[in-house]
Amino acid sequence: MKIKIICFGKIKDNSLKEMILLFTKRISYFCEIETIELNEAKITNENSESEIKVALDKEYQMLLKHLKDKNCNILLDLQGKKIDSIKFAQILDENIKKFKLINFIIGSSYGFDNKVKTLCHYQISFSDLTFNHQIFRLMLLEQIYRGFTIANNIKYHK
Amino acid sequence: MKIKIICFGKIKDNSLKEMILLFTKRISYFCEIETIELNEAKITNENSESEIKVALDKEYQMLLKHLKDKNCNILLDLQGKKIDSIKFAQILDENIKKFKLINFIIGSSYGFDNKVKTLCHYQISFSDLTFNHQIFRLMLLEQIYRGFTIANNIKYHK
Repeated sequence: MKIKIICFGKIKDNSLKEMILLFTKRISYFCEIETIELNEAKITNENSESEIKVALDKEYQMLLKHLKDKNCNILLDLQGKKIDSIKFAQILDENIKKFKLINFIIGSSYGFDNKVKTLCHYQISFSDLTFNHQIFRLMLLEQIYRGFTIANNIKYHK
Repeated sequence: MKIKIICFGKIKDNSLKEMILLFTKRISYFCEIETIELNEAKITNENSESEIKVALDKEYQMLLKHLKDKNCNILLDLQGKKIDSIKFAQILDENIKKFKLINFIIGSSYGFDNKVKTLCHYQISFSDLTFNHQIFRLMLLEQIYRGFTIANNIKYHK
């Protein structure tokens, strides 16, 4: 059983790196976990829609290599379905047993190409609020760890 | 203009402390910010509803001292209203100008007494998901900082 966190860009802040490492270690008690940090496609003019489109297509091509048929792919998406932690735990528990590998995909700071959605089994929204996508990685890991504690009926102080 | 974060318990993890300090500093560029860490009421049996009720009442009494009429009190509450970052920025901007002091209240790990709601102008839900309430402090600070950048039309890389 394995979880892959597929995201764009590296964590720059050392304290955040440490927090992410801490939750990665906690999750590794339940299953193998790997993080794939893809390179965010660079654009020169952030206001140019066509440049963003080209960048998102490049990022889609990078993602394609990691999202194979036999995996369960879960996209974290502002427009996705809102669920509570109990439901998140259920999805995690069911699919890790069924697929053996779950990919959690976090878009880049420009979002993601709509084609990414077609590759995913679930689209989950954590919030209507936008979060720094580096902090979002910590939020996701905390939720995965929480999910495992719920599914395995282990006490985890909130 | 001032923001107070009123919460229960101290941050134990040093990396998280540093992240929280970083965003507190960033916010202080826009307005004064103070954090009030109240003592979480202790209970011996976490499954006892009556003990939790007594604890939440104690916590309510502690909160009362900080929530004065002239402030704008914003409760972060799983059952609150869901808004996006643009709306959050509007609420922040309007009320910091009107009230001069905004209190953001984060309940303890047991939640809060329903009486707290009657003292609050807004009840905002960040997510249907439950988050570790220490990590939630970081999520709130990031959102306040983001709110100020939106309201002041300042670029903030996501």
